[in-house]
Amino acid sequence: MRTIDWVDGAIELIDQTLLPDQCVTLRVHTVDELVDAIRRLAVRGAPALGVAGALGVVLADGDPELIARLRAARPTAVNLAWGVDRAAARLGEGREAVLAAALRLRDDDIAACRAMGERGADLLEGDRLRIMTVCNTGALAAVEHGTALGVVRTLHERGRLAEVLALETRPLLQGARLTTWELAGMGAPHRLVADSAGPYLLARGGVDAVLIGADRIAANGDTANKIGSYALALGAERAGVPFYVVAPESTIDPGTPTGEHIEIEDRGPGEIVSVRGVRVAPEGTDAINPAFDVTPHDLITAIVTESRVIRP
Amino acid sequence: MRTIDWVDGAIELIDQTLLPDQCVTLRVHTVDELVDAIRRLAVRGAPALGVAGALGVVLADGDPELIARLRAARPTAVNLAWGVDRAAARLGEGREAVLAAALRLRDDDIAACRAMGERGADLLEGDRLRIMTVCNTGALAAVEHGTALGVVRTLHERGRLAEVLALETRPLLQGARLTTWELAGMGAPHRLVADSAGPYLLARGGVDAVLIGADRIAANGDTANKIGSYALALGAERAGVPFYVVAPESTIDPGTPTGEHIEIEDRGPGEIVSVRGVRVAPEGTDAINPAFDVTPHDLITAIVTESRVIRP
Repeated sequence: MRTIDWVDGAIELIDQTLLPDQCVTLRVHTVDELVDAIRRLAVRGAPALGVAGALGVVLADGDPELIARLRAARPTAVNLAWGVDRAAARLGEGREAVLAAALRLRDDDIAACRAMGERGADLLEGDRLRIMTVCNTGALAAVEHGTALGVVRTLHERGRLAEVLALETRPLLQGARLTTWELAGMGAPHRLVADSAGPYLLARGGVDAVLIGADRIAANGDTANKIGSYALALGAERAGVPFYVVAPESTIDPGTPTGEHIEIEDRGPGEIVSVRGVRVAPEGTDAINPAFDVTPHDLITAIVTESRVIRP
Repeated sequence: MRTIDWVDGAIELIDQTLLPDQCVTLRVHTVDELVDAIRRLAVRGAPALGVAGALGVVLADGDPELIARLRAARPTAVNLAWGVDRAAARLGEGREAVLAAALRLRDDDIAACRAMGERGADLLEGDRLRIMTVCNTGALAAVEHGTALGVVRTLHERGRLAEVLALETRPLLQGARLTTWELAGMGAPHRLVADSAGPYLLARGGVDAVLIGADRIAANGDTANKIGSYALALGAERAGVPFYVVAPESTIDPGTPTGEHIEIEDRGPGEIVSVRGVRVAPEGTDAINPAFDVTPHDLITAIVTESRVIRP
């Protein structure tokens, strides 16, 4: 299964808003359709957004306005702009060259996730590992395999995984909907927990490591990732549990000096005052909805990429 | 409005599972009905449970088995057992004496909440206070006024409240459903946030104090409260934001030496895999659902009761 791919002249992607109830593949023919899919999180996850950006440049057919709109569809994950830029750099060589660059990005992502899985599994010690994670960083967040959940997958392939505690990840419940679905698919033991229970369960014991992905890593190692990551990092530090970020090199942004310079997307009150279409707060309730937070580098044990282990 | 009261020979209580959509008052005539109401959180909040326990002894009519079942309906909040014991101590004097004791508890709770509100508002410095809180600790959690949200109400009455950031409080969304409803009713500015965003918003600035309630306070000051309180305490410590527990003296349990001795209720996977009746995780997903966590005393700036300020 590939989350996103190029098939017969169009982008095909799994509409992640419908999971776990339905697994529907969308065919995307225009940049407008792609921007819509990105904004409503039909496709999400930093590595997948990188590939979506690159393939989207093929659809843009050289139109600079469309390319700019695609590049800005979501602000926090650096991979989207990075993927757009990588493909757009070949625009002068014609459509086939742009497509070739985008397909190379896709193949590189698959290889990078495999390499992160191996490197992360090598780094962790122990034979019966209990892992806590937030959001979805699996195959659905990349092209295949995944980043932090890719390490989990490799651990499971090696017979070293005891259990995953998956945070549900309000507001859009990527943990409840997507991570559990992937873990069930791979036959890995797992239990779901409310986001707020993560730090407490770390304090209570029973977790060997926290693994998260990343949407943008600043030059000093500060890491923007799904809201809730910072709370887990605080809990891990207090409990003495190692806290790892697993992300491709493309997520590291040398142009962003520290976490303070990362723009954090606020997705508005709608996602907070309702859950999967059911209203949970009184009419008229306002909300703050930062989709990401920033974990300072001093709370990160190590960053694992496809080519190295960085200890910030 | 009283959350719970004794009216014409029965307990009347607001069914909090139906808020904010409907405000329905239940009449409870038997201990079985009361235990059911407590277990499904139709009535909740440590002080309200204390009054429910005491009034329930009147309904038990001296039956020790019924009294024992009522006392054990929920394990974490000490107030329930305390309220049962206070009323049961008068059983030898007849039903009227038991009822009088229970009504005194009700009146004492109202006075205690008012006193906590005054004391907490006196303790906080500043004229335009931005307060973060979790769960519901307002009038709905007591008989009137509330504990932590009672302080907020007093601040608002004094014109010193700028805004409340209310955590939604998964899984049962007491923050989204109940706290917003109370704040809207008192005309206090507020915004709702996902639980996982609490620690990050503290780091980002814009919050002057965190106020929470308590379900049981151990002799050393370790405090059991709604799941998510501990994560907020970690975030407050890192951000240098004061973290206050507001609770009546009856919540302090000298028989529990430290937080490690507090039994934490696990309410099972049902509340995690669905939200207000809508399934959010694949069929068969298991979950851990601790309803409370324990905040170690070193993370608590002060505990405010009706009679004193304790700095653990």
